[in-house]
Amino acid sequence: MLSIFIIGNGRMATHLIQAFQETDVEIAGFYARNSNHAERISAEYKTSFYSDLSSIPKDCDVYFLAVSDSAISELSEQLKVQGLVVHCSGMAPIHSIKNQTHSGVFWPIQSFNINRTLEYAKIPICIEANSEENLRILEALADRISKKVMLITEAQRQYLHLSAVFVNNFTNHLFILAQDILHAQGLTFDLLLPLIQETIERVKEVDPRLVQTGPASRNDATTLVQHEKLLEEQVQLLNVYKMLSKSILEYTQKG
Amino acid sequence: MLSIFIIGNGRMATHLIQAFQETDVEIAGFYARNSNHAERISAEYKTSFYSDLSSIPKDCDVYFLAVSDSAISELSEQLKVQGLVVHCSGMAPIHSIKNQTHSGVFWPIQSFNINRTLEYAKIPICIEANSEENLRILEALADRISKKVMLITEAQRQYLHLSAVFVNNFTNHLFILAQDILHAQGLTFDLLLPLIQETIERVKEVDPRLVQTGPASRNDATTLVQHEKLLEEQVQLLNVYKMLSKSILEYTQKG
Repeated sequence: MLSIFIIGNGRMATHLIQAFQETDVEIAGFYARNSNHAERISAEYKTSFYSDLSSIPKDCDVYFLAVSDSAISELSEQLKVQGLVVHCSGMAPIHSIKNQTHSGVFWPIQSFNINRTLEYAKIPICIEANSEENLRILEALADRISKKVMLITEAQRQYLHLSAVFVNNFTNHLFILAQDILHAQGLTFDLLLPLIQETIERVKEVDPRLVQTGPASRNDATTLVQHEKLLEEQVQLLNVYKMLSKSILEYTQKG
Repeated sequence: MLSIFIIGNGRMATHLIQAFQETDVEIAGFYARNSNHAERISAEYKTSFYSDLSSIPKDCDVYFLAVSDSAISELSEQLKVQGLVVHCSGMAPIHSIKNQTHSGVFWPIQSFNINRTLEYAKIPICIEANSEENLRILEALADRISKKVMLITEAQRQYLHLSAVFVNNFTNHLFILAQDILHAQGLTFDLLLPLIQETIERVKEVDPRLVQTGPASRNDATTLVQHEKLLEEQVQLLNVYKMLSKSILEYTQKG
């Protein structure tokens, strides 16, 4: 049976605990400095919590650094273990893990919120390791929670992370802007949910290029000008509108 | 029993025919200039097709101008009927309908594609009319296909249309950009679908402001610079990345 230990108590750490609890993998515990929040997680998932890094179990197969990119190097330097140490970042290079014989990357392509239940089986997991043997260990672990495990290069992972910003962070920002437009008119965001749902359903089946619609894609100058006029007093919204319309127009023209 | 007639044979017209076919409303037929495409629709939906505007039935309760914004005035000028004439545009003012005693607007908040089956009951329909009586007729019609019928002003409709561009057209464009980033790395767009799905599921339950994540929202300059470096040879993508990151940063700071 594989055993794991998790360093961190944020969103990534919590979801790793949740995901592996549904498998035969043994979760030996997790490390965190903040004890209040950690005690809650420890109680909720019946998992041991360590606040002293030097006292954590030393014989686990894999240690997950489920921490911010900037904390990976420092924490791994302090980690005196024999097992495989992996980080869970989309951007950090594998060599940001210091002083370890066995290192790797275990990055699920998902945006994690504390309070949401996710279907882990559907979340692709990207893995990378410093040896063929370590790669096999990570593959075995990832296979237990996801149906889509991928061996990819550092560059591929970083570009995937970047593309995730476009479809998640940027899309959510557009939702906020749309909400602002509606609130100013006394209307609510839920009016757009069926349209948003359809926007997604389509691209599950069809290349997004084939379903691009709207005034910019059909070069409808009348509507573009009308929309810009509606936003004339909201400079930031107007800038986003103009820039994305211009980008759509350019893409449509180059085909 | 209410009877309707549809002017147009594009996506909006086709979906109106589809939606009303499931109700007790009588579809007296539709008008189109392009006969090939219209004959196919006529056969598929067993609905009469007219290619001469002067020969269409004159005794219907409601006539839908399911045509482009720029065709509304010209077509309504040629329309010699007694019934209520409505257009289906998010942007056109009601007075773009010419020479009619009874006029209105019937605008479903959705992006229509020919080949997709939609759950009409969930699509909000915005209505507007030049009299209380005409409004009641439109309400009765809209109620038959949607559970969400709204009486809104022209300004509200136009801002709704604008916000729909943000969540549909712009979001889809971001999907295209993300796809380009992935294709250049030999990766496929389907890797992002679980993340995209989660992006949507969240805002069904939570205000998008509360789930904004990513390097810009946490002012993570290291990742922002790394991402920009990945895009340094793709000016258009880089511009979109910088501008939306800046917009997120500004929104996060003003709270």
